Amino acid sequence: MNWQHAQQHYADRINQLLASHIAKLDNHAPHLKAAMEYGLLMGGKRVRPFLVYALGDACDVRQADLDVCAAAVECIHAYSLIHDDLPAMDDDDLRRGHPTCHKQFDEATAILAGDALQTLAFEILCHEPLSEHLETVRIELIRILSRASGYAGMCGGQAMDLASTDKQISFEQLKALHNKKTGALIKAALHMAAIVGQQTAQQIGIILQYADAIGLAFQVQDDILDVTADTQTLGKPQGSDEQANKSTYPSLLGLAKAQQQAQQLYQQALHALQTLPYNTDILQAFTAYIVQRDH
Amino acid sequence: MNWQHAQQHYADRINQLLASHIAKLDNHAPHLKAAMEYGLLMGGKRVRPFLVYALGDACDVRQADLDVCAAAVECIHAYSLIHDDLPAMDDDDLRRGHPTCHKQFDEATAILAGDALQTLAFEILCHEPLSEHLETVRIELIRILSRASGYAGMCGGQAMDLASTDKQISFEQLKALHNKKTGALIKAALHMAAIVGQQTAQQIGIILQYADAIGLAFQVQDDILDVTADTQTLGKPQGSDEQANKSTYPSLLGLAKAQQQAQQLYQQALHALQTLPYNTDILQAFTAYIVQRDH
Repeated sequence: MNWQHAQQHYADRINQLLASHIAKLDNHAPHLKAAMEYGLLMGGKRVRPFLVYALGDACDVRQADLDVCAAAVECIHAYSLIHDDLPAMDDDDLRRGHPTCHKQFDEATAILAGDALQTLAFEILCHEPLSEHLETVRIELIRILSRASGYAGMCGGQAMDLASTDKQISFEQLKALHNKKTGALIKAALHMAAIVGQQTAQQIGIILQYADAIGLAFQVQDDILDVTADTQTLGKPQGSDEQANKSTYPSLLGLAKAQQQAQQLYQQALHALQTLPYNTDILQAFTAYIVQRDH
Repeated sequence: MNWQHAQQHYADRINQLLASHIAKLDNHAPHLKAAMEYGLLMGGKRVRPFLVYALGDACDVRQADLDVCAAAVECIHAYSLIHDDLPAMDDDDLRRGHPTCHKQFDEATAILAGDALQTLAFEILCHEPLSEHLETVRIELIRILSRASGYAGMCGGQAMDLASTDKQISFEQLKALHNKKTGALIKAALHMAAIVGQQTAQQIGIILQYADAIGLAFQVQDDILDVTADTQTLGKPQGSDEQANKSTYPSLLGLAKAQQQAQQLYQQALHALQTLPYNTDILQAFTAYIVQRDH
């Protein structure tokens, strides 16, 4: 199975799973339910569930156990996109070619849908069945996801991003911002898979190194593409970071050094994967995709 | 200790505790941290922590175990107020005489502060120490709070409330709406205290009956005061429900029947408390306050 096939396979799986979580909800607030479904099933590459499934399959975890982690982490991601798109935040009308949640419904419903999807992540983590031998790690999964989502993670990173617009920040500050804003949830996805995969402390350490490297590589490549790709390939206006007065890796390091940085992170990520005692081909292909993609 | 003393005592305790939770956060996003603190420490009667402490003290629970429940439930309540006040929701400029969070900071920060406070509730529930014999109920606490907060509870109730404005709804629909919008979290507070208080299944059943009765009584009395109290005593414009075209208990039942309903709920709540095999004087005084208050 190559990366594209694996990605499609896992995306189908998570889409079905998320649809079933929404279908299980009662109908007392149909408008809110529809908005939650809309935000959750808008598509996208499903990178975080992919990471859960790819690592979990590599170390032979039962799929039902991976489902719990994948669904929870994607609920958090979906809620963050709905709230980030709001007029008071990034004020985006379109996401993946479709009206954003507040455009399709209304702002109040979009705020509530985001709120309820965050809660749904934790409901899934504490209610959905896990293999009996994993019951003791359930609380650990909630610890990982809550720490990654809140002030110490994603929410804090988003606030740092808001605070750094129109300001010159340092390379270290930019790294810290992205580590929290997008890195924390990517890391949580892999960490949760490692936990249900009953990895040793040493293996978990390696997996988290891999997570740090790809989280950062993904952002560096995003910034590079904003400079080098044309608007059509990118699907958003080329140069939009510069226009939004955001510090980027190319603006802080220069384009050549940013490209060098992406390559270094790719090598670090690959090295980490190759240290693991099982077949990580799919994850390796995904890692190559991160730094080779053109959009 | 009478109800007013107990209420002040418990309010002081929860205020200190919440302040300490905020103080523990790193300073990477100072603006967000300040907004979280502002929303969390705005004051108020702290009814939900009061219920946790009053029931927990009545059945001799270690205070540190009650702290975990009280802080988590109040984080959820505080986040819901911040989001409810937003321009797209109730568009309120003032809460308890102070600028609302989005007025004091800005809308983006208020949205994020609400988001991060929701996460903080779950972080507290999974990270804060509990007595060793209670470690096995930790996941049960998260189940109770997440179910009460999300689509099946508070968020769903808020959506039902939005959907019912300018519409005639039935008495049963109004009850269902309030059961979710405000009742669910009040019930969760008492349920969590009952769980850490290691109450029997029968006692938990009685406590949940009590919770249902006071949750509803609180709302019925609110609606009655909106008709009978003058604007100055109420602290908000008298008749504001009617102006906002909201169905209320007096508008659906008539004032006399609504008052009768409040009295019936009071008697039910009192009866439930008197069935419990320990001293519930403080909770009884609180129950009387709910239906006798004039604002």
